[in-house]
Amino acid sequence: MSSTRTSKSLDEVLLEERLIGYLDPGAEGVLRALNVEGVAETTSSCMGRVTVIEGEWPWERREETRIVLKSHTRLSPERVAMVMARPFDNLWLKASGPIIHFRVYSMECGEALLRAARAAGFKHSGAITLAGDPGCCVVEVSSPTEVAIPLKIRGRILVTGWALVEAVELANRALAEGRSRLAKLLSLAPEALRDCS
Amino acid sequence: MSSTRTSKSLDEVLLEERLIGYLDPGAEGVLRALNVEGVAETTSSCMGRVTVIEGEWPWERREETRIVLKSHTRLSPERVAMVMARPFDNLWLKASGPIIHFRVYSMECGEALLRAARAAGFKHSGAITLAGDPGCCVVEVSSPTEVAIPLKIRGRILVTGWALVEAVELANRALAEGRSRLAKLLSLAPEALRDCS
Repeated sequence: MSSTRTSKSLDEVLLEERLIGYLDPGAEGVLRALNVEGVAETTSSCMGRVTVIEGEWPWERREETRIVLKSHTRLSPERVAMVMARPFDNLWLKASGPIIHFRVYSMECGEALLRAARAAGFKHSGAITLAGDPGCCVVEVSSPTEVAIPLKIRGRILVTGWALVEAVELANRALAEGRSRLAKLLSLAPEALRDCS
Repeated sequence: MSSTRTSKSLDEVLLEERLIGYLDPGAEGVLRALNVEGVAETTSSCMGRVTVIEGEWPWERREETRIVLKSHTRLSPERVAMVMARPFDNLWLKASGPIIHFRVYSMECGEALLRAARAAGFKHSGAITLAGDPGCCVVEVSSPTEVAIPLKIRGRILVTGWALVEAVELANRALAEGRSRLAKLLSLAPEALRDCS
């Protein structure tokens, strides 16, 4: 996840985030394509990932949960099993789809971005704030390609052996499906943003 | 899930949906509270539910998946086990949070609704269309309190015995958490919608 943007140029922001290791692998090319000057700029992004999370629920935010394993590429069942052997009470295996926030400068372009996002399979997209100054809104473009599989609940392991192998494979495939939708977004959104204004 | 609204009054719509059995249990009181005349009207809703879904992925829409068990209240492990014994290839146990769509008539009231929704724990809310005529937008208010647990993948059962009991309990508790956020939404949104215009 990277979070950006004051009055710096896109180049300055990307260089800075690359230097501090804050940019997801592969994010730079994606963000360059999705920023259209004067129309829409990205303000934060995650390219999708697989994590093992400690916490009561997989939807909780940073304060209540802790990421104990994180990968932007395929995870192996062995790495997940190693984490499960440690004395955690509640563990979830989570695959998250790509999520990108845009500041958009007009309603027309916000609507164009939402249409392109939905056509690319980002069905959870919407304007999360409408009180834009400058611009009309902040649009969150988010993919539903997510799984959260309980691995360990109250100290007891729920999936083991081949079931664990299958669970990790599901998470890896969900990650791949998110990436494939991201590729589709890249083929649709830049043109939609250039044509809307 | 109920989907509504042409030029009928709220009373007419609710009566009609109740007669055809299309309204989720408990939905009527919720919808009456959330409709504020001239400011925002609900167009579709689901109060949250627990389902067992047949399909490759839990996020897929109606065309690719089939609901084989559905409940708006707690499910028992016995009922889930009975479904798992049938010759399905892929089954997911899914708890979904409440989701409500509103047509909102101004940007200010859209923003007020989004703020109230977030404060009530509906963190996945956003305006899903900005080309509103009439009004500014359609706002989706949606709770992240969702789990999707793989029960059976490619014909093989992943969770059994006490792990299945634990999985069903997780889904039931996720449903309860969604309902508790819905109660909070009812305490915040009507006032926010009356004050925004």
